[in-house]
Amino acid sequence: MRIDFLTLFPAMFEGVLGQSILKKAQEKNAVHFNVINFRDYADDKHQNVDDYPYGGGAGMVLKPQPIFDAVEAIKKESETKPRIILVCPQGVTYTQKKAEELAKEEHLLFICGHYEGYDDRIREHLVTDEISIGDFVLTGGELPSMVIADSVVRLLPDVLGNEDSPVLDSFSSGLLEHPHYTRPGDFRGMKVPDVLLSGNHKFIDEWREKESLRRTAERRPDLLNNYPLSKKQKQWLKEFEK
Amino acid sequence: MRIDFLTLFPAMFEGVLGQSILKKAQEKNAVHFNVINFRDYADDKHQNVDDYPYGGGAGMVLKPQPIFDAVEAIKKESETKPRIILVCPQGVTYTQKKAEELAKEEHLLFICGHYEGYDDRIREHLVTDEISIGDFVLTGGELPSMVIADSVVRLLPDVLGNEDSPVLDSFSSGLLEHPHYTRPGDFRGMKVPDVLLSGNHKFIDEWREKESLRRTAERRPDLLNNYPLSKKQKQWLKEFEK
Repeated sequence: MRIDFLTLFPAMFEGVLGQSILKKAQEKNAVHFNVINFRDYADDKHQNVDDYPYGGGAGMVLKPQPIFDAVEAIKKESETKPRIILVCPQGVTYTQKKAEELAKEEHLLFICGHYEGYDDRIREHLVTDEISIGDFVLTGGELPSMVIADSVVRLLPDVLGNEDSPVLDSFSSGLLEHPHYTRPGDFRGMKVPDVLLSGNHKFIDEWREKESLRRTAERRPDLLNNYPLSKKQKQWLKEFEK
Repeated sequence: MRIDFLTLFPAMFEGVLGQSILKKAQEKNAVHFNVINFRDYADDKHQNVDDYPYGGGAGMVLKPQPIFDAVEAIKKESETKPRIILVCPQGVTYTQKKAEELAKEEHLLFICGHYEGYDDRIREHLVTDEISIGDFVLTGGELPSMVIADSVVRLLPDVLGNEDSPVLDSFSSGLLEHPHYTRPGDFRGMKVPDVLLSGNHKFIDEWREKESLRRTAERRPDLLNNYPLSKKQKQWLKEFEK
């Protein structure tokens, strides 16, 4: 997969793309990142990328020209057709399902805005997707673009070892994960549940399934609305209510 | 405000904290960041921070000791009492309201996990908040912690200039933002709406209010459930439906 980031702050990406799983994914050639400063595409002599909003008001608005030209240059030299993603609070709310969808693409291109906003012609005529990572406001599109890239890249074949298999993640199963514990069994008086030390895998699996359901029911009951509950799970839910 | 990040990948933070608004906020002494590798607190000779899960299964689990000791060392040397935030998919979904709440604190401490998960005793006995930025899975807690920090820091006094006032952001008003446009008025045949060039501020304000409502109704009708609609706005909604 190829992932391009159009940004005014290329240095924001260095640390994140150069560490941990994203670093390993590049070493394995599962993904290739390009960080491009779209100021380089500004066609006026001062390389301005923003201007005052029509109709007045606070803040600066990103001009269409540098971003259109940067995207068009990428499309021209690329063999693959990119999904052109604008990260903004007005977009579709990002979920694991969207991550799985994007993981099937060959080429993603993120437009990372800054300042008050984008000229709306970018939204209307250039992008293929508008995505919001949540109902909160950030100083720019760089962090949410990295968030989306991270969630997608970890799903690509061979990026995670078998040990980190994404199959059992929260949301992939439809439920929140069960609690995890590791050594010591007694840490400053705080103990690991006995069942996990029992060695009885039937009991352990059942405990995990039940605690996963309990955590979901307590914290995110909305996730159960579309979840196909088994007969046993329905009984557990009744038990939790008491 | 003081913000501490406990992480195994300190280099992930350099680019993001050293650019743009987060950089300026530090220069203005509005915020002070500390990035701490909690591996430095591991008390075994190999500085292990993770171990196999009790009960078996894939992945490694972060041990309680290094994280408990790192947090306790910070609490001991700090004059302020931190909110201790675990970023995880099982947490409360992050919103702008939570950003505004955290912006009132003096001290935030983020625990950034990696690998399969945390020992649940960290969750039960150490943290004050569990926050999820959304229903998707990431390779670690670093990016979501930076996302939360970014959204909080921009709300601190004097961090944004008047020109970037956060008052008119999406979600702060309860509606999505109206479209923005800047020069040129005609970009490759794509034109700015006439009203914005009219100079009539009464018409411009009304157009913006209407487009903000239209965008919210089309894209995020859920945001209107608790929004106090004016009579005029109710009429517009009827008009959009036609």
